[in-house]
Amino acid sequence: MPHSIEVMFTPAEFELLPQRDLSQTMCIVFDVLRATSSMLTAIANGAQTIIPVAEITEALAMRQKVPGALLAGERNGFRITAQQTGGIEFDLGNSPREYTPERVRGKTIITTTTNGTRALRACAGAQTVLIGAFLNLQALVDWIQFTHPQDLLLVCGGTHDQAAYEDVLAAGALFDRLGATWKTGLTADSALMALKLYQMAQPNLSLALQTARNGQRLMGIPELMDDVAFCCRPDAVPLVAGLSPDGTIQRWEWA
Amino acid sequence: MPHSIEVMFTPAEFELLPQRDLSQTMCIVFDVLRATSSMLTAIANGAQTIIPVAEITEALAMRQKVPGALLAGERNGFRITAQQTGGIEFDLGNSPREYTPERVRGKTIITTTTNGTRALRACAGAQTVLIGAFLNLQALVDWIQFTHPQDLLLVCGGTHDQAAYEDVLAAGALFDRLGATWKTGLTADSALMALKLYQMAQPNLSLALQTARNGQRLMGIPELMDDVAFCCRPDAVPLVAGLSPDGTIQRWEWA
Repeated sequence: MPHSIEVMFTPAEFELLPQRDLSQTMCIVFDVLRATSSMLTAIANGAQTIIPVAEITEALAMRQKVPGALLAGERNGFRITAQQTGGIEFDLGNSPREYTPERVRGKTIITTTTNGTRALRACAGAQTVLIGAFLNLQALVDWIQFTHPQDLLLVCGGTHDQAAYEDVLAAGALFDRLGATWKTGLTADSALMALKLYQMAQPNLSLALQTARNGQRLMGIPELMDDVAFCCRPDAVPLVAGLSPDGTIQRWEWA
Repeated sequence: MPHSIEVMFTPAEFELLPQRDLSQTMCIVFDVLRATSSMLTAIANGAQTIIPVAEITEALAMRQKVPGALLAGERNGFRITAQQTGGIEFDLGNSPREYTPERVRGKTIITTTTNGTRALRACAGAQTVLIGAFLNLQALVDWIQFTHPQDLLLVCGGTHDQAAYEDVLAAGALFDRLGATWKTGLTADSALMALKLYQMAQPNLSLALQTARNGQRLMGIPELMDDVAFCCRPDAVPLVAGLSPDGTIQRWEWA
């Protein structure tokens, strides 16, 4: 059977994944601005485990079970405050630049993302679920070439219920780097479109990310504007991280 | 409030539309290869009304109520046969070239499309629902400029559960032709992506349609391959057709 590659642009699509047989499928979840970029940065800087949860209350409950864990997450771009939790200040926001070695080395991080967590949970039945961003493109490509999954599903986290341009670009960038095995397989129109969008944006990727709605929003917030360039550094974080059956995310090493 | 423009790539997205307030929204449904192209061709050639239905059994039941109506539709690209219905041969398939004036003038056409009908029904709560294709781009643009809806939602029919490149290109082509009012409004990333894909494909639109999965499939069937070029004739059918509250489609004339 030829390999297949498909891209999902929106939450509406990935929410239907639990109905689908993904036993031969590798899912890669992209939430470039900024959830998956932050996760990869945290792991590169020595964080041991990331526990993605959907709600603030879920994060607080999880923290009870994992003393010493850091609480991370944003609402409307900013770190969650004591006011929003009823007393507990979060340790980290969703800016990948906050996840420094000094702060995260050896730590477990409980992070509340909205679309990122929704996407990860929707993919839970897949053979493999990996964390994707521009930061680790080649590491993902190497992992794919080595493990050669039957089907590849690139899942864009999006924003609220809509598609996010930066996620589609990252999916297209990954496809662009894959070899002939994938280019000659069953290519869904969605993957073709992501590839074309990436190839068009590639000469000035940084500008493309600033054009995205999320990029525009971040560029308008002085403390966060540098995040856009930070998340737009292909291969700056050459590692693979994946979702374990227990719902946590760790670095995956070559066997 | 600024105007907004958004594109839906897949059935998973438009199936959620009934949950959304569309009272200020104009929806335009694109199913370029070939449902909406056939509908527009039929109306241009004098068909009076089109009744879209989802299933063959629904089409047969509707025919009982509307004697003299033509039965139209395809399964796997070909006209529905007597074998598939238990005895009744359909009058027309889904090739727009079949919808000649001799065959359709003055007629009611009951057509079973899958994604086209799903999309039209999902949009039923909208202020306005129009039929879109490359064939009537400028007519749609003129209608939009004249009626100036608050929000514009370009709904791509797709194929099975996936996005179809040709539908996204047509949505992008429409956006490309809209004026500054729309370009400076709230542009969803989905609309930006459709626009970019169209602008890239525009120098050889016919080749782009042949690259789409649906285009490839049609190009592989000698009797149907000419449909691709037929559906790729911008403004060849300069009319607007819309969905009435009773679920039927007619030509809409300027008041």
